[in-house]
Amino acid sequence: MNKPSILLSLACLAACTSTIAEKHVAQTSVNQPKNIIMIVSDGMGPAYTSAYRYFSDDPATSAIETTVFDRHLVGSATTYPAPVSGYVTDSAAAATALATGVKTYNGAIGVDVNKKPLTSVLQAAKNAGKKTGVVVTSQVNHATPASYISHNESRNNYNALANSYIDNGINTDVLFGGGWKFFIREDRNIVKEYQAAGFQYINSYQQLDSLQPNKAVIGLFADVGLPYAIDDTNSYRLSAMTKAAIKQLENDNGYFMLIEASQVDWAAHSNDINSAMREVKDLAVTLEYLETYVNQHPDTLVVVTADHSTGGFTIGANGVYQWRPQLLRKMTQSTYAIAQYFSKHTITQQKLSEMFAGEELQSEDINEINHAKSAAEKALANYLTLSKEQQAEKRQPDVVKALYQALNKLVDKHTNTGWTSHGHTAVDVPVFAFGAQQQQFTGSINNTDIAKNIFALLAK
Amino acid sequence: MNKPSILLSLACLAACTSTIAEKHVAQTSVNQPKNIIMIVSDGMGPAYTSAYRYFSDDPATSAIETTVFDRHLVGSATTYPAPVSGYVTDSAAAATALATGVKTYNGAIGVDVNKKPLTSVLQAAKNAGKKTGVVVTSQVNHATPASYISHNESRNNYNALANSYIDNGINTDVLFGGGWKFFIREDRNIVKEYQAAGFQYINSYQQLDSLQPNKAVIGLFADVGLPYAIDDTNSYRLSAMTKAAIKQLENDNGYFMLIEASQVDWAAHSNDINSAMREVKDLAVTLEYLETYVNQHPDTLVVVTADHSTGGFTIGANGVYQWRPQLLRKMTQSTYAIAQYFSKHTITQQKLSEMFAGEELQSEDINEINHAKSAAEKALANYLTLSKEQQAEKRQPDVVKALYQALNKLVDKHTNTGWTSHGHTAVDVPVFAFGAQQQQFTGSINNTDIAKNIFALLAK
Ligand SMILES: [Zn+2]
Ligand SMILES: [Zn+2]
Repeated sequence: MNKPSILLSLACLAACTSTIAEKHVAQTSVNQPKNIIMIVSDGMGPAYTSAYRYFSDDPATSAIETTVFDRHLVGSATTYPAPVSGYVTDSAAAATALATGVKTYNGAIGVDVNKKPLTSVLQAAKNAGKKTGVVVTSQVNHATPASYISHNESRNNYNALANSYIDNGINTDVLFGGGWKFFIREDRNIVKEYQAAGFQYINSYQQLDSLQPNKAVIGLFADVGLPYAIDDTNSYRLSAMTKAAIKQLENDNGYFMLIEASQVDWAAHSNDINSAMREVKDLAVTLEYLETYVNQHPDTLVVVTADHSTGGFTIGANGVYQWRPQLLRKMTQSTYAIAQYFSKHTITQQKLSEMFAGEELQSEDINEINHAKSAAEKALANYLTLSKEQQAEKRQPDVVKALYQALNKLVDKHTNTGWTSHGHTAVDVPVFAFGAQQQQFTGSINNTDIAKNIFALLAK
Repeated sequence: MNKPSILLSLACLAACTSTIAEKHVAQTSVNQPKNIIMIVSDGMGPAYTSAYRYFSDDPATSAIETTVFDRHLVGSATTYPAPVSGYVTDSAAAATALATGVKTYNGAIGVDVNKKPLTSVLQAAKNAGKKTGVVVTSQVNHATPASYISHNESRNNYNALANSYIDNGINTDVLFGGGWKFFIREDRNIVKEYQAAGFQYINSYQQLDSLQPNKAVIGLFADVGLPYAIDDTNSYRLSAMTKAAIKQLENDNGYFMLIEASQVDWAAHSNDINSAMREVKDLAVTLEYLETYVNQHPDTLVVVTADHSTGGFTIGANGVYQWRPQLLRKMTQSTYAIAQYFSKHTITQQKLSEMFAGEELQSEDINEINHAKSAAEKALANYLTLSKEQQAEKRQPDVVKALYQALNKLVDKHTNTGWTSHGHTAVDVPVFAFGAQQQQFTGSINNTDIAKNIFALLAK
């Protein structure tokens, strides 16, 4: 139990209501937070943080350990977009709501339903004289970071968004994530423009440890998004980027930082629970670091939420009262990486079992994976016989993708994991908060209230 | 936004931290609650209360109205049972955890993993001199109420549980729900025994208005569970029973009451979102009544949670970013009632559309319902040609059930509703609390903490 003891509280009721009062005063006597860290875990609906508890449960102990999420849950947030888009949001409308306090249409980046630009909390923090940072595991011009930094009528205008990061005036002192494809282009080298504006540029995680202090920085570590945490050279890259960003951002006026665990959503779109759990783990490790940081810097506020839930993920399925995360704890690579391997190699029971961390597989399991591969190969061969015009009308069959899907289904079968969609659903998402003024985010709130609260905390 | 204004709080920071302190003192200067109302909404995971907001959204206004759940969310609770049963609970183990503060195996009624009886908060309240009441929409000896009232190694021992309500000593002053089948049996008439013990007995909702005051009461209103809210003579029967129960229970020593919205779970097991939403509505109306009651009786605590989530219900599915509750708002009977009708009548497009509240249906919709009926009828005819011995090895095909399932799938298609299971899943469930000492239930807590907190609040 991680709550203050009820017995203590009861003992206090008659004589010492002041204990509770003092505690509350102590929490709020910290003035408006100097530093604000807003964390969006894309797609991380309530089932993901519950599942993470069971995924990270130590089977050697009889108790189920609480997680960093359990320690800081304060309530939940709605996710619905503007009425024109119904009840189910996309990441752009949700990020705009979280960043600006305004509900908008699905696809909108920092603009309202009339496509008018909105001010984000990051921009307000910049205007208030704070340093600002953005740390994500997607490309840095993906929907969530873009909604804090810029404005566009469509999330799909990636090059325009990358251009706007310079053209509208640079408003981030630290920018970490992926995106070479959009920032180092044939028609425009935006990284060079950042450097010309006085930024240092890094392109490997190693360089995070040797940044020049007091100098703005752009770090791009992949062509588009970073590799999945489970496959990356540093599975805790969100945590590593966060630590380096904070060092660069700390200053007397404080800072605002957006962190996004971008790829819970991506794994979930593919119904890949193995990768999703490792993305949540990367976030959890980041939060554990921030717990320590806030203890040392109590003038810092950390708010964590999701923009929506993805995949219709359920912990258990098919009428069976079980969820078996044991396989997930053992796996050392993503099903996507395994799919890439098997797209080029023969699928044998031994090799598949080895890649499934020694999990005992049945011959029907192998058959299904083999079937998915040969069906996709045949479809591809067929496609390649078509004329250019005929090909243009179809989508090119993708053997890796077909294998990835089949391998995810195999994981689902062995873990008894359920999914209802490759898109989003509208369940309310959990809200976590700790540090200065965390109590402003309790209860059931609207996603727009998160931005409104931050605006209020930034106002002098 | 239903939170205290952050602007007010900020304005207060420098000069008047006492405002916040005083508010907290005001909340806790109410001593331990005189009355405790514990409400379990069986199966109502987080997707149900989110969906209820969209189901009850008034399409005539541009805003989405907040619900009674939104006003009182304080956190969430885990649902996992004792390790022997894995991570996914059944209703018996969950009810035992909520009632006694001890995790146990799936199927256990008020006993621990060694089948030793446990004391429930209802029993503790009785021992503390309070009156006690149980109000449910299932039979009164179903898993949840039974875990508060009695003990048994298995939830399936319905007759033994009914017997125990008398044989272990009656410990409820008010008992409302279904259960003639178990309480008025050929071998034993337990209702008569209640009457011999001084109870008044009622068997219709109308009699709720004319109960003798200051006299214990047993009210049984159906053979097993009550009809679905949407089909019942009073769709707000939970609210009606609750009001009548409180009148009987009020006394100088206070009372403990368990209320269960039992059939969210039942509808969800059948993947019937139409009935599930109406069960949640019956609960919401009950909570709205209790809001008023607690305003007038601030010495009352109301705690609401679910025992687990059922059905793997998701708001949206199939890659489509939509949920369309419009159909659900219009329907006037359950798909179960429609299935009963069509099991005896010809299925026509006109009649089906009429029963779907004028929803435009396609011929393929009719074909699917017709196909389900004829397949079940054929299977049944086949079954009836078998010998008794052959029949004993099979389950008798059920035309109503087959139609019910097909009609639910039709509702899913028209609303874009997703399900992954006919069983339970392990997502954390929301916790709502208001009234005296509601702050004890905030944050992420274990389901057992709810009982532990109530025990502490009952202790002198
Ligand atoms: Zn997404
Ligand atoms: Zn159930």
